Amino acid sequence: MDWWLEAAAIPWEHAMTTARNRQQQLTKPPGSLGELENLAVLFAGWQNCSDPCIDNVQIRIFAGDHGVVAEGVSAFPQAVTVQMIQNFANGGAAIAVLARHCNADFSVINMGTATPGPDMAGVVDVQVAPGTANFCIEPAMSEAQVRRALECGAEHAPAAGDLFIGGEMGIGNTSAAAALTSALLDLPATTTVGRGTGVDDKGLALKCNAVERALKLHVSSAISAFEILRCLGGLEIAALTGAYIACAQRGIPVLVDGYICTAAALLACRFNPGVRAWMLFAHQSAEPGHRHLLHALGAVPLLDFGMRLGEGSGAAIAVPVLQSACRLHNEMATFAEAGVSAGKSD
Amino acid sequence: MDWWLEAAAIPWEHAMTTARNRQQQLTKPPGSLGELENLAVLFAGWQNCSDPCIDNVQIRIFAGDHGVVAEGVSAFPQAVTVQMIQNFANGGAAIAVLARHCNADFSVINMGTATPGPDMAGVVDVQVAPGTANFCIEPAMSEAQVRRALECGAEHAPAAGDLFIGGEMGIGNTSAAAALTSALLDLPATTTVGRGTGVDDKGLALKCNAVERALKLHVSSAISAFEILRCLGGLEIAALTGAYIACAQRGIPVLVDGYICTAAALLACRFNPGVRAWMLFAHQSAEPGHRHLLHALGAVPLLDFGMRLGEGSGAAIAVPVLQSACRLHNEMATFAEAGVSAGKSD
Repeated sequence: MDWWLEAAAIPWEHAMTTARNRQQQLTKPPGSLGELENLAVLFAGWQNCSDPCIDNVQIRIFAGDHGVVAEGVSAFPQAVTVQMIQNFANGGAAIAVLARHCNADFSVINMGTATPGPDMAGVVDVQVAPGTANFCIEPAMSEAQVRRALECGAEHAPAAGDLFIGGEMGIGNTSAAAALTSALLDLPATTTVGRGTGVDDKGLALKCNAVERALKLHVSSAISAFEILRCLGGLEIAALTGAYIACAQRGIPVLVDGYICTAAALLACRFNPGVRAWMLFAHQSAEPGHRHLLHALGAVPLLDFGMRLGEGSGAAIAVPVLQSACRLHNEMATFAEAGVSAGKSD
Repeated sequence: MDWWLEAAAIPWEHAMTTARNRQQQLTKPPGSLGELENLAVLFAGWQNCSDPCIDNVQIRIFAGDHGVVAEGVSAFPQAVTVQMIQNFANGGAAIAVLARHCNADFSVINMGTATPGPDMAGVVDVQVAPGTANFCIEPAMSEAQVRRALECGAEHAPAAGDLFIGGEMGIGNTSAAAALTSALLDLPATTTVGRGTGVDDKGLALKCNAVERALKLHVSSAISAFEILRCLGGLEIAALTGAYIACAQRGIPVLVDGYICTAAALLACRFNPGVRAWMLFAHQSAEPGHRHLLHALGAVPLLDFGMRLGEGSGAAIAVPVLQSACRLHNEMATFAEAGVSAGKSD
């Protein structure tokens, strides 16, 4: 049996019930903390405890190049993937700044870049392949490459932690996310292709056309999730998929970032539906295809700031919200403790 | 001239332009941090500096009782106002927990409760009146009381700080907020009255009827903002109004919380339109009337978690978002610093 089919952990229902009861006793009108109450209950269930906390945040950035850039789908040259790996490790990228302020464990895994990546502290050099093939012409990856990328994701996912955030870097990877979204949800490219890093109208047309050709070339109604990933995905997307599955198997909650990460999240859930129970969704991306993925996952994202940077940055922004939810749950006084009269039940 | 008419400070346009330019040079696609970019630019303008920060957060909770509770408009007894003042000072209330984790300067000002408030460290006892009068029968406050409450708000607002959050506590004050919203925006009570702390259908009908009677009794087309506040507001709402105006005059940005605070924010802007330039809006409350106030203020709230607790809790939840926006602005590398190729301009 493939490792990704092994059962995900199961959140502790009893701890969630206890947490729900406590929320009713805290000095506030019942329900008045809205989504923050649900978050505290979820973390209580995930951590099987009455005082959930999010101190140990684990962030991994998976990077990889994409053959589809040959079609002119990105506003940035392919060299930026490697340059940004360096920027992550040097602490100058957005996610590096945010990871520092979350006090997170942070590292970058180079899954495969077109030119060799930097040999630096904080960068794990995996290089499954020098980027993917151009999916307009051939499958993005071989079966062996997908298996290896999925495994690398699991290997480099944390062994333990209060929260996992996966991030990604790869020039061209919103094209891959769009192709995956179209194939997984049977949607036309026009609804899943966006401007990514900021292509102009000409770039947008090229991108849409490239995704349409790829769908025509690879997708039939009987195609499996594995084959969709292999033909249309990316090395970093496969790694994220593997990391999400491994976290769910290890009982580590996952905070999913934007468009590319959510495509990997949907793949992970198609590979193994039990994974969904360990996922939270950080934000609504400005990329138009993202909402289709969220809808398919039954997910309501926490934030909506019109972000479209990737790297896991939207997820890192949401971490303090989760921490606040847990602290309120743990530290607020109950009506009895504070000598506050409870309201009429409605 | 009344003190609240004195000019608000003016954000530094030059610092905002400099910040906008820097945002274009940071290692990310231009605009990809969405609203976080705007927030950093605003704080640069408010602080007149190139590296804005939000270290010094000032939180004041204004509490007061409301005569309209005699109409059966709340799910909680009036005694809860005083009990919660105690809970704030003891650190068990939601806002006290959040203030601790923001490292905020935090105090509670008792503007006037029906029974004497607790004599405790961290509570300033002002007691302008033992709560307001029942606005279904007579104006909530006298002119002298409103003036005193506005002044107290200004007095207890911070003299300096990176951010001001006002919070409120007062059983019955969503009825006051609804009446104010209806009067300020010429809206029927049915669109501004919600369940507040959680009244049942009977309570909701009583609340709607009470607000309707108050509007009929006090509101004519020629009524001034001051008179609307006097007839329909509350001591804590007047204090918030004064505090917001004073902060804008002192050049301290304000993060506005939910329904009651936003009613005070709209009053503050009606008293002195220059105040608006110092305001951010933290979240969309679950109270249905809140969106009308935000719309009138041209405000898009940062968060939407279905919260309806008050106390300033929604604003405190949003503080880390503002801090993240500033840190990204200050600490991200530029394309030149990181040796990353910039994209094609679109």
